[in-house]
Amino acid sequence: MSQKYVYLFADSRAEGTGKMKDLLGGKGAGLAEMTNAGLPVPPGFTITTEACTAYYAEGEKFPEGMWEEALAALEKIERSTGKKFGGTENPLLVSVRSGAKFSMPGMMDTVLNLGLNEETRAALAELTSNERFSYDAYRRFIQLFSKIVMGIDAEKFEHKFNEYKKKLGVTEDTQVGAENLAELIEDYKAIVKKETGRAFPTDPLKQLELAIKAVFASWNGKRAKDYRRVHKIDDNLGTAVNVMTMVFGNMGEDSGTGVAFTRDVATGEKIIYGEYLQNAQGEDVVAGIRTPKKIAQLKEEMPEIYEQFSQVAERLEKHYKDVQDLEFTIERGRLWMLQTRNAKRTGSAAVRIAIEMVEEGLIDKATAVKRVEPAQLDQLLHPMIDPKSPVEVIAVGLPASPGAAMGKVVFDPDTAEEMGKNGEKVILVRTETSPEDFHGMVAAQAILTSRGGMTSHAAVVARGMGKCCVAGCGDVIVDYANQLFTVGELTVRKGEWITLDGSTGRVILGQVPLIEPEVSGHFRTLMEYVDEFRKLGVRANADTPHDASVARGFGAEGIGLCRTEHMFFEGDRIDSVRQMILSSADYKALEAQLETAKAEVEKASKDKKPAARKRVKELEKKIKRPSELYIGALSSLLELQRGDFVGIFRAMNGYPVTIRTLDPPLHEFVPHDDQTLKDLSKKIKMPFKEAKARVAQLHEFNPMLGHRGCRLGIVYPEITEMQASAIFEAAVKVKREGVVVKPEIMIPLVGNVNELKLQADVVRRVAEEVFARENERVEYLVGTMIELPRASLTANRIAEVAEFFSFGTNDLTQTTMGLSRDDAGRFLPFYVDKKIFPDDPFQTLDQEGVGQLIDMGVKRGRSARPDLKVGICGEHGGDPESVIFCHKVALNYVSCSPYRVPIALLAAAHAALADETGATAAATTA
Amino acid sequence: MSQKYVYLFADSRAEGTGKMKDLLGGKGAGLAEMTNAGLPVPPGFTITTEACTAYYAEGEKFPEGMWEEALAALEKIERSTGKKFGGTENPLLVSVRSGAKFSMPGMMDTVLNLGLNEETRAALAELTSNERFSYDAYRRFIQLFSKIVMGIDAEKFEHKFNEYKKKLGVTEDTQVGAENLAELIEDYKAIVKKETGRAFPTDPLKQLELAIKAVFASWNGKRAKDYRRVHKIDDNLGTAVNVMTMVFGNMGEDSGTGVAFTRDVATGEKIIYGEYLQNAQGEDVVAGIRTPKKIAQLKEEMPEIYEQFSQVAERLEKHYKDVQDLEFTIERGRLWMLQTRNAKRTGSAAVRIAIEMVEEGLIDKATAVKRVEPAQLDQLLHPMIDPKSPVEVIAVGLPASPGAAMGKVVFDPDTAEEMGKNGEKVILVRTETSPEDFHGMVAAQAILTSRGGMTSHAAVVARGMGKCCVAGCGDVIVDYANQLFTVGELTVRKGEWITLDGSTGRVILGQVPLIEPEVSGHFRTLMEYVDEFRKLGVRANADTPHDASVARGFGAEGIGLCRTEHMFFEGDRIDSVRQMILSSADYKALEAQLETAKAEVEKASKDKKPAARKRVKELEKKIKRPSELYIGALSSLLELQRGDFVGIFRAMNGYPVTIRTLDPPLHEFVPHDDQTLKDLSKKIKMPFKEAKARVAQLHEFNPMLGHRGCRLGIVYPEITEMQASAIFEAAVKVKREGVVVKPEIMIPLVGNVNELKLQADVVRRVAEEVFARENERVEYLVGTMIELPRASLTANRIAEVAEFFSFGTNDLTQTTMGLSRDDAGRFLPFYVDKKIFPDDPFQTLDQEGVGQLIDMGVKRGRSARPDLKVGICGEHGGDPESVIFCHKVALNYVSCSPYRVPIALLAAAHAALADETGATAAATTA
Repeated sequence: MSQKYVYLFADSRAEGTGKMKDLLGGKGAGLAEMTNAGLPVPPGFTITTEACTAYYAEGEKFPEGMWEEALAALEKIERSTGKKFGGTENPLLVSVRSGAKFSMPGMMDTVLNLGLNEETRAALAELTSNERFSYDAYRRFIQLFSKIVMGIDAEKFEHKFNEYKKKLGVTEDTQVGAENLAELIEDYKAIVKKETGRAFPTDPLKQLELAIKAVFASWNGKRAKDYRRVHKIDDNLGTAVNVMTMVFGNMGEDSGTGVAFTRDVATGEKIIYGEYLQNAQGEDVVAGIRTPKKIAQLKEEMPEIYEQFSQVAERLEKHYKDVQDLEFTIERGRLWMLQTRNAKRTGSAAVRIAIEMVEEGLIDKATAVKRVEPAQLDQLLHPMIDPKSPVEVIAVGLPASPGAAMGKVVFDPDTAEEMGKNGEKVILVRTETSPEDFHGMVAAQAILTSRGGMTSHAAVVARGMGKCCVAGCGDVIVDYANQLFTVGELTVRKGEWITLDGSTGRVILGQVPLIEPEVSGHFRTLMEYVDEFRKLGVRANADTPHDASVARGFGAEGIGLCRTEHMFFEGDRIDSVRQMILSSADYKALEAQLETAKAEVEKASKDKKPAARKRVKELEKKIKRPSELYIGALSSLLELQRGDFVGIFRAMNGYPVTIRTLDPPLHEFVPHDDQTLKDLSKKIKMPFKEAKARVAQLHEFNPMLGHRGCRLGIVYPEITEMQASAIFEAAVKVKREGVVVKPEIMIPLVGNVNELKLQADVVRRVAEEVFARENERVEYLVGTMIELPRASLTANRIAEVAEFFSFGTNDLTQTTMGLSRDDAGRFLPFYVDKKIFPDDPFQTLDQEGVGQLIDMGVKRGRSARPDLKVGICGEHGGDPESVIFCHKVALNYVSCSPYRVPIALLAAAHAALADETGATAAATTA
Repeated sequence: MSQKYVYLFADSRAEGTGKMKDLLGGKGAGLAEMTNAGLPVPPGFTITTEACTAYYAEGEKFPEGMWEEALAALEKIERSTGKKFGGTENPLLVSVRSGAKFSMPGMMDTVLNLGLNEETRAALAELTSNERFSYDAYRRFIQLFSKIVMGIDAEKFEHKFNEYKKKLGVTEDTQVGAENLAELIEDYKAIVKKETGRAFPTDPLKQLELAIKAVFASWNGKRAKDYRRVHKIDDNLGTAVNVMTMVFGNMGEDSGTGVAFTRDVATGEKIIYGEYLQNAQGEDVVAGIRTPKKIAQLKEEMPEIYEQFSQVAERLEKHYKDVQDLEFTIERGRLWMLQTRNAKRTGSAAVRIAIEMVEEGLIDKATAVKRVEPAQLDQLLHPMIDPKSPVEVIAVGLPASPGAAMGKVVFDPDTAEEMGKNGEKVILVRTETSPEDFHGMVAAQAILTSRGGMTSHAAVVARGMGKCCVAGCGDVIVDYANQLFTVGELTVRKGEWITLDGSTGRVILGQVPLIEPEVSGHFRTLMEYVDEFRKLGVRANADTPHDASVARGFGAEGIGLCRTEHMFFEGDRIDSVRQMILSSADYKALEAQLETAKAEVEKASKDKKPAARKRVKELEKKIKRPSELYIGALSSLLELQRGDFVGIFRAMNGYPVTIRTLDPPLHEFVPHDDQTLKDLSKKIKMPFKEAKARVAQLHEFNPMLGHRGCRLGIVYPEITEMQASAIFEAAVKVKREGVVVKPEIMIPLVGNVNELKLQADVVRRVAEEVFARENERVEYLVGTMIELPRASLTANRIAEVAEFFSFGTNDLTQTTMGLSRDDAGRFLPFYVDKKIFPDDPFQTLDQEGVGQLIDMGVKRGRSARPDLKVGICGEHGGDPESVIFCHKVALNYVSCSPYRVPIALLAAAHAALADETGATAAATTA
């Protein structure tokens, strides 16, 4: 039996249905559905995706029977419309469009007015009593067909048209009359002949055949193939072809064309929203030559049509249970629906529509949750640039931290702080930022850097603060000496206004109106729905009591990562940190010597004892100063950290707080300019030369792989002791206030279980000491970051000691891929651009590689400790796709920056709902 | 039935055998074996390891029946010797020693003369007619027993003895007479009373009981436990206790004691080799107070004893089929054997003995191969410091590259080169080395650095050259300004002589006689045996024709890693490299602009064409200079590299040569001092400011994880093209000469199969171009380094493109463990010292972590391509333990520095033989 390749839709009856997207493509299925629903759809037919596949299987030939079926369908359309394809009285013209299952860039555009030639054009002229209209239609058809089907550069036609306009001394297309258009058409045909060596086809059936083949060909065009490769779409799906009767919105004042949405896709308000143009074709609406009217005006101008349209709109929305994006044409007072599809919408509209549709009983809560994309929430959480305002974009960098902000350009943190104190809005512009710029970043509205990637210091800190940041904007050349930056020829000086869009990476000259975010009642309702479905916990990365409060406000269920060192830069506490670091090595060395010397006194024979004792005395004298410095610094840091933890514990009353012990290499804290170091050495009375030597000694070739993480705490256990004391003393204090406190101490950069053992021993010992001293206990956990491949590989060993894991996916990505996030800017954009990597792995988790190590880490960890709590605290914790992965590999929670908590919550709900769908599908199959 | 805890050996009959090492310990089994062989062994008994285990199981009590069995055995000894324990006529004295299955530091030393008290001493005095002898024996016993069994500081006894000598005005122990010794013994007893509160035990049985318990206790001493933890020895094995009749070598001129080997353990010569002392006890030999005589003298002094001894020696060697390390005592003209065990030997002795024993028919070839430890060969391949020479060690660094060398200290490579040219021997001393020091390293005898680890630049390059290097010697403070280095108080200036021992890390002041290595006939024979057994291939890492020849000489079966960039530093070719780098970015940027501009000319409308054409002209003009520089540099490098490859291919005629494309970050090649850069920029006529900016631009925070490896070739495909051209042009050339050439092009740092695809495409395209141009083809492979965790994790994907894998375990270790080998010096020694890591993972492969990724990479790679050839080319390829691992995970070959090829070959044979043993064992079990 021969296969059916062509599906007719005409006269309220379609051979296909809305469910047949695989066979008819999205567009064809929609047209069938509308036709079956009795809506006014111009008759037409869809050639199936299977025809396309067969076309390729048979060496680019139409499969047997297809063309005959198409001709038969065409005949039925002729019967339905009373028109005739190629007819010289009432000619049938058609549009031809591609329509794959997924819409795909690179696929063929629409060819309109197919079927025109000199004869049919003349008939059209007569029929419409409009000579110019017929010539214009023919001109447009030749131009479009030549470009799309025959592959001739459109520029050549435009160029010819422009010559005419120039000659005629006019500027608008519409000012070119029928006679000139007729001449132009001859010129167009000459161009086609010259470019292809063949005449422009005049046989409508030939035109149709070529157009269908062009659609099929576009399926295997380079862009479409690349797109499929990247998005992993099967090459064998094929595309459908939709052939539909042309209707004309440009047949006079009783005609028109428009697009409309069944609700306002900007705000979500339940109101038909759209635009139309009287006496115009679709192209004209898009071209923007004439200003379209609001759809509301249609109510006044054509009340009956409006009434009919609004009923159609309502039916379609109810039918599809979602907001529809509609295309329609009015031909001589008759409404035709050309397309319906689910409408794209802004984040806030998505939320409102989802909630209101639940309230209207149209959809259930699960559907409402699925209707909002997690990434869309981002818009709701940050100010945005008013899309209606014209902007002067001078450069585009990485969208490092979303939102928009404007301010005066400043180039150093001190000025930023000073101007900020005076109430001025500033934007801090740096080549890159370092922890020493922190106070300036706090004072600034936003940060712009010319170097560094999505996880550079600037980006990470800005995201943590929910502050707009554009990073790695290579076109911006910062000139600190002259306090200006340049972009090509343009110079922007200190004090000039710029606006940053951290959601798109745009750097904009001057001030631009911003739209403030509004966390509306609908948003809150959505989050309530979300909590009914999601299984994955969501915590926040928060380093200060303020961050902790913000995080709770957004619904965080605890802190998944508190980076103790981020507190080190507040106020002048950095001095204590530096004092600790500068004195540490000296202290440790002398301490070791002293220990040996003391042991030697014990062992020494009587005659050698005095000398040995003398040595001890000398060392005791020598260690006094470093000891004062080191122990002094540690104890002042203890005070400060204890205070911080008290604030954080209070803010997180009842929720767990995961505190990471000191992680970054020490050289990140010390000053690298001589003057600051001189001031510091004066302040702490340490010889400058010594301080300088210590700073030099801290230099590392690859600090990322250097002396950091638990390796610090192992060599300097006093630092871990100090931090543990601060945590437990704070915990005991707030417990007495009635706060429910759940500290989780997290040891970073563990690669070998022995490292964790040593550090966990220190933490547990200090805990017992504090509890004994205070006569009060708190429950706590000791766990580790899993951020090295070796930690994942030996997770079963590590879980013997660790009570919880938290995947540090930033560092795990760096080590697994051998990719420094600070340096990758030189090739990573190139890699992502050329699709060598599917995504920036620092934004979206590399599931194929890093994901394997996470899965392995979870499984092996739980093999040793079945109740092991596992989370993730890298940047990926706030990336929807990565959150869904985390759900799949059965993590207990994700942790992300406070401002991304709602996004993670929603993504978690999506993941859980996807499970249910999968489960239902499985149940049905079984 | 009660368990048997005590095994007697007496009168040529032992209850145990030499096979019962588990139960009797190594020593006890040896004594049983000798006794059974009818050799003269003083009667005694062994308390089993099971008794020790039971002792702990029962709360540190002797298990039921043990003591009674011991007493029964003692009675049998009394019967055999005619002596009586605690007897006042002919008292039996015994020695008590520990004896676990494995000898272990921290286990109890020997207690001699046990059974003495005032009465038995008096009997001994009478029996020997030597009052002083008896007192001295008693004194020694108290001292030893107090220290070992009762835990009293030996210093206290020494101190007391010294007081006596001082009082008497004598210096030697032997000068203290019987009377004084008697007094001293009373003082000793007083010390014991004071320190322990108890009297020194006088009951011999009590002494025995305490000594046995002390042996058991030492099993659970801290040092022994630590040792077992580190060496993964089961805590439940327990130790045996050997109680044996004392024999005295110090009973006059017809008595003596000695140690001997059945062959010369320094040279391997088949000759009894050892020392003895007349009228002395074992202690005296060790103490070195008197100079012992060569064993040959015994032949003259006591010919019968010598004859008997040499027969015993021969019997034991034949019995154990290995060189024996013997302890003996002659008591009044009667020979007693106290111990026999397999002897430790030097590398060259091990080789000679193994080969000669095969020739003697004593062992088979497989045994001979197993008898030589791979690491022992290292000694045979490098000069060594004459162990007989006294040396002044001033510091100890890392043994970075084995061998020994001396020379005058110099501090910069130019001086090294200059002095080297004048025939002077120099040692290059640097804080650390960089590629720019290469010529100095070539000229120097050896290299000493104060920073950097086992895989620092200095270490790697030195090992590659087979040149002695001591690295990371932190005590050496280099002062370039004053051309000296200090170690503590000591100053060593330029021109002063030092000697380095790269096998131990010692830095020695002055000149020391060296022993040159000799690759003897035995060595060659051993390598022939090795080839009969090993299955794993062994290649060499070689970067020059010279290295390649050396490698072939050592038996390498090809090159596993040829680092093209190592050739970049020879002569002045570095200038071309630098020119290429400095011009590359400029060239690439302009090239991209030019391409865009040309496309714009195409697209531009007529009126805009002139402007667009002008832009193209401008860019063409602008690109001329960078183009000349870039293309020029590339083509001169092409010439040079082609020449290198020709030489290497010739040296490796018939064997594969794996060539890695450019790997290190570009900044490693550019000068970092302004003067060199100025000279260079003048030479290549590039503005200094531009050159400087480019150098600055190349800076990376973590170069290890930065823009290097295939990431270079992907952004700069011209470089890969140039290298591929050089390889294939060279291959074609040598093929025409009749050389069998097998190039294998290896792409470094691949983490994603797409990276490899792009680079492999370039290589294959260039290959076809060269073959077409030259009308000649060569077979070749394209493969990749697996040196990122992600590469192992996705090895199945990568193997779709790669024709071979080579594990770059240096980088794989760095990324898997998150450990920079350049920076780890700050904590890695601490880690290894504290046993946080079992070994330096850059020396011995981290099998638990990195090993998993290798295993995974092999399995997954072969799942996609079953015939995938897999090797390893990290430093670990020359480490015996790691080679065995490579055999186990079924690699095809290992590749190591030429000077380690024989070591790898031997280790490979060991691995294969271990398989066979395993297989035999399995077969027996089955």
